[in-house]
Amino acid sequence: MTDQPARAGGRRPGTSQTRDAILDAAMESFTSQGYTATTIRGVARAAEVDPALVMHFFGTKDGLFDAAVRSRGLPLRRLSEVVPGDPDGLGERLVRRYLTLWEEPETGARLQAILHAAAASEAAATLLRGFLTEEVLRPIAKTLEIDHAETRAILAGSSLIGLAMVRYVLKVDALALLPPETVIAAAAPAVQRYLTGELDLD
Amino acid sequence: MTDQPARAGGRRPGTSQTRDAILDAAMESFTSQGYTATTIRGVARAAEVDPALVMHFFGTKDGLFDAAVRSRGLPLRRLSEVVPGDPDGLGERLVRRYLTLWEEPETGARLQAILHAAAASEAAATLLRGFLTEEVLRPIAKTLEIDHAETRAILAGSSLIGLAMVRYVLKVDALALLPPETVIAAAAPAVQRYLTGELDLD
Repeated sequence: MTDQPARAGGRRPGTSQTRDAILDAAMESFTSQGYTATTIRGVARAAEVDPALVMHFFGTKDGLFDAAVRSRGLPLRRLSEVVPGDPDGLGERLVRRYLTLWEEPETGARLQAILHAAAASEAAATLLRGFLTEEVLRPIAKTLEIDHAETRAILAGSSLIGLAMVRYVLKVDALALLPPETVIAAAAPAVQRYLTGELDLD
Repeated sequence: MTDQPARAGGRRPGTSQTRDAILDAAMESFTSQGYTATTIRGVARAAEVDPALVMHFFGTKDGLFDAAVRSRGLPLRRLSEVVPGDPDGLGERLVRRYLTLWEEPETGARLQAILHAAAASEAAATLLRGFLTEEVLRPIAKTLEIDHAETRAILAGSSLIGLAMVRYVLKVDALALLPPETVIAAAAPAVQRYLTGELDLD
């Protein structure tokens, strides 16, 4: 793995720096241009390597996307940080942290890239489903100590994803122009009800 | 507009039949292959016309998408049919109708194509935003006779979009495997609260 081809005049460092450079270029392209417009050739050019090397490391665009998202950490992982604590305040903590992530320009752009990819590619949807389940739903469900905890967690998650679709992807004014605190106050009780309220899920 | 070029051996009917054939082929491609994989060339081939004719009629892929969705009617239009009636049951009627649309194979595939396109293309997102605002939010808001009716309607809409993203696009088991009636019972009160419950939106 140390004698990878490098384009004449291009980068020729050790394997792990090359791999990192490709992943940096890939994340930059997925974020700024979107999943659809990103190509292996374009990423290779930005990383100053041969496209064959990108394919050697990552196989396909989906493989590159998967590796780029994993290597940079999914921003959603930071959602699970707010899980410990009073269960009655979990709805508000989740909505607040989630909106904060979306409002940060860099994190928001990455989240948007991930949602975009999940809608555009079955493989990216599978990746996001795995992340959501392992790193968000399970940790939340584990703290709830309540029946149907996973179903409750995913219902809460659907509220959050819907807010992001309307506010940050579709950008419908009536929701996009509200101050974050107003959205948090409106949505937190809905999320809290899904997590701990009365639901007939049998 | 009557002397359009037609590929040798291809279709050469009147303009409106040709236009319809292109729109049929486009909707079929957007639905079965997705927005990203659909090309003007592929649609032209399926409709047995010259690609230049598709571009002449519709300009770009986004223009073709816009025309195809409009000509076939956005399935979401059927949501507004359930708006008249008791406002206290509106949440349940909306969730029930919405899930019914997604559960019908043909309508579900079209809705999925539209969500996919909205995530993949700014122009498609603009189109969906316009439809949502004019044909779903405004009719709902008008019947509510309550402050912040549009904000309430879009919060309710975000719940619906989130359910579809998780159940039909990401297909997370904990929500995808529930019977529709269970989802309706769980989500209707959340939607109803957004529409008519106590919210601090000032």
